[in-house]
Amino acid sequence: MSFQKLDDLGHKLEALEHALAILGADEATHMAVGGGEKRAEAMSALAGMHHARATAPEIADWIAAAEQETLNEEQQAAVKEFRRQYTNLTCLPVEFVERQTTARMRSEQLWRDLRAKNDWAGFLPALEGVVALVREEAALRADVLGLDPYDALMEQYDPGNRAADITPVFAELKTFLRDFVPEALAVQDERLAKHPLKPLSGSYAIEKQRELGLAMMAAVGFDLTHGSLSVSHHPFCGGVPSDVRITTRYKTSDFLSALMGVLHETGHALYEQNLPQAWAHWPLGKARGMAVHESQSLFVEKQIGRNPEFWRWALPVVEKHLGEAWSIEDILPHVHRVERGLIRVDADEVTYPLHVILRYELEQELVSGRLEAADLPEAWDAKMRDYLGLSTIDIPADGPMQDVHWPGAAFGYFPSYTLGAMMAAQQWAALTRDHPCADEDLAKGNFAAINDWRRQKIWSQGSRWSTPDLLERATGEKLNATHFTEHLRKRYGEVLKGA
Amino acid sequence: MSFQKLDDLGHKLEALEHALAILGADEATHMAVGGGEKRAEAMSALAGMHHARATAPEIADWIAAAEQETLNEEQQAAVKEFRRQYTNLTCLPVEFVERQTTARMRSEQLWRDLRAKNDWAGFLPALEGVVALVREEAALRADVLGLDPYDALMEQYDPGNRAADITPVFAELKTFLRDFVPEALAVQDERLAKHPLKPLSGSYAIEKQRELGLAMMAAVGFDLTHGSLSVSHHPFCGGVPSDVRITTRYKTSDFLSALMGVLHETGHALYEQNLPQAWAHWPLGKARGMAVHESQSLFVEKQIGRNPEFWRWALPVVEKHLGEAWSIEDILPHVHRVERGLIRVDADEVTYPLHVILRYELEQELVSGRLEAADLPEAWDAKMRDYLGLSTIDIPADGPMQDVHWPGAAFGYFPSYTLGAMMAAQQWAALTRDHPCADEDLAKGNFAAINDWRRQKIWSQGSRWSTPDLLERATGEKLNATHFTEHLRKRYGEVLKGA
Repeated sequence: MSFQKLDDLGHKLEALEHALAILGADEATHMAVGGGEKRAEAMSALAGMHHARATAPEIADWIAAAEQETLNEEQQAAVKEFRRQYTNLTCLPVEFVERQTTARMRSEQLWRDLRAKNDWAGFLPALEGVVALVREEAALRADVLGLDPYDALMEQYDPGNRAADITPVFAELKTFLRDFVPEALAVQDERLAKHPLKPLSGSYAIEKQRELGLAMMAAVGFDLTHGSLSVSHHPFCGGVPSDVRITTRYKTSDFLSALMGVLHETGHALYEQNLPQAWAHWPLGKARGMAVHESQSLFVEKQIGRNPEFWRWALPVVEKHLGEAWSIEDILPHVHRVERGLIRVDADEVTYPLHVILRYELEQELVSGRLEAADLPEAWDAKMRDYLGLSTIDIPADGPMQDVHWPGAAFGYFPSYTLGAMMAAQQWAALTRDHPCADEDLAKGNFAAINDWRRQKIWSQGSRWSTPDLLERATGEKLNATHFTEHLRKRYGEVLKGA
Repeated sequence: MSFQKLDDLGHKLEALEHALAILGADEATHMAVGGGEKRAEAMSALAGMHHARATAPEIADWIAAAEQETLNEEQQAAVKEFRRQYTNLTCLPVEFVERQTTARMRSEQLWRDLRAKNDWAGFLPALEGVVALVREEAALRADVLGLDPYDALMEQYDPGNRAADITPVFAELKTFLRDFVPEALAVQDERLAKHPLKPLSGSYAIEKQRELGLAMMAAVGFDLTHGSLSVSHHPFCGGVPSDVRITTRYKTSDFLSALMGVLHETGHALYEQNLPQAWAHWPLGKARGMAVHESQSLFVEKQIGRNPEFWRWALPVVEKHLGEAWSIEDILPHVHRVERGLIRVDADEVTYPLHVILRYELEQELVSGRLEAADLPEAWDAKMRDYLGLSTIDIPADGPMQDVHWPGAAFGYFPSYTLGAMMAAQQWAALTRDHPCADEDLAKGNFAAINDWRRQKIWSQGSRWSTPDLLERATGEKLNATHFTEHLRKRYGEVLKGA
């Protein structure tokens, strides 16, 4: 039976994925510094074995045969998602993948070196090579998938996401934010003029911060028997659903950045820990995609973790671990700090979408050929000045060189961040319709009903539906910018001013 | 070129071994408790992939063809060792391996449960099944390898070791120890009567003990850029040569057990870290076998770490980390403590070989059929009373049920422990002939010349020679019990009494 062949293959692929995931997490947390070269060799060989097994030609026959077998509805969905993944994995010729891998690795290495030197001219030829290959990739994918080129790229990260659906929503959001960013800053200035910012001073031992993080993780729903918290230079959520590895980094002078990072990664982890276990070795049982994953991390970090009600419960927990008795009025100005800046990863939730929309617009033009890499510094600067009133013309390192995505040939990924933020707001709105006392739950540190809703609507669904369908099934409507803009207005706008 | 095919295969096998080694070490140190089931599934699937690749029928052709190719001497040695490993890996029929794996896993699980309950009768049927299969395995291996059945089992762990060579050496050692154990105990009693044992009291924080262990590891030659020290329930040396993971366990009330454990595992680690890197992906580049590996750990733990000269250097290091100013006279009675006991893993270096010789004798009789599993409690008890004056007849849990080896079907492994101890003593004797001031080096904490000798004679040789040939090339003579008995006599005998 061909379904069984796919099932057996799934177990083998899962074992290799398990090894790659744990080796990857281990590399960032526990590996000896000199172990990197052999680790890279081993992971490259294991990834090659995975790719060879996952793309073997006979799998096409197994899928076709399985589609003719008598299967229940869930099994049919599993085969359908297997086909989708197989098509995406096999739509590029091997010679193209090899050419692109070489170019990407060279470009990433160069980028690491030249970004530190702010050397755009030195980096440009490598980026031009990557852009040329991405145009080729988009055309190849578009051809196989019957999609527009940029949609075919996004399809890798969020199945079903289409520029035709996203662009009008982003346009609405952009229009809103151009007015709202100045408003939020004015509100903040006015508030700070009345109540100057009280520094959350003090030195907080890493061990105490770690205990605080673990307490928060556990309270929010992280299963500590199926995961752990360690330290790494760049925080991440990795590992496998049965053993999710999240990391953070600590500064003794700033407990809040580590804690908010832990909450963010906990959001990713909850999704992984609550995926349907019976399908763990099938594409069906995996997380849906990047935007949905980001919606889960942002749900915990922004919708829950920066909600004032949450802090009614959280402050005594902080006090217990750090010994500081701050008030809500002390902490919220830090948690809700808004600031215009050049760097996307440092941005707050109000300004962040403008960074993403800028990239979304530019990368579509790069892929279509309407823009060349050589013209990026000017195009970037023009949009930065327009959206955030800041110029990057003299600092390409903080302009088009700031992210690893383009040097790494990952075009079509950026929109996932802001789609995730919007979807998180839309999920919170739907949740509070179904469960009106969600705010009161937060104030009591009671996350059970909130997580039950998320488990039922999102986590248990695995990859059963496309990204837009999953959102619509969970919230009852298509992607709607209003939920996010209302969320920002409530938290940062004039209304709050009088509160 | 077939040599190149073997080389390519070696890289793939090395990647899978890398994954298995790191996943195994991770499981014991950093894995979440609930991650075990999926980890076991993944490791079992990866081990299956490794076995399938390592035993593929076409490899026989590649080896045969490579043997006809023009190769340099080292390449020829590499192919020869590849053939040896391939023969050992493929000499059992698949149906036998499957039967044995099932029986062994069931027997190990039962053993874990029933040993705790001292339930020999409940465990016996499982052990009888394992013994029957081991007899079958020994016959199968003997047939392919042209060896005696017990030799064919030992061949897996120490290529070249033969009962005909080992038995007379063990007989000499046994004769010596039957007289020497009482002598050493009498010497100890007399000394303790004069100078009562001073407890190494105090509570030593784990973090301080860890720093002490790391300082000792580094001093003895462990490369901390290619390895690390963590905590696990059972101490081990794992990982890969580029990233050796050693572990220990701490008791705040007893710093010495953790420290001596760290030195023991450091001995294993030095061997791994100093294997010939260019051959890391070939059998030639791997450690020779269990007895040689044990000789390296015991070299550091016993020859170096319990040498009084070592403590002249080590005590100030201990004082620096633990703040205790002990004298040589305070520490040596602890480091050289001799005690008759039932449990092998708790035994000191004087009594330990008698535990091993007992097992060596009994397992040969079990494999040959001269002894049945049902008769083990009596046979074990008789030898324990004879060799150590202790009875186990009422406590099979501390008699024939005490080790995992037999429940796990590992027959032919036990002699490696004592062969390792003897080989370590023989290596120390050869080293001091070549380098007469080794003792003075220890007293200064200077391990460079000692490690240079070991690197040249043992570590750099990988699997180039059989176990007995490696020993003979390194020390200039065959296995000779005298070096070990002289070592014991000097450290624990009458001579020391007056010192």
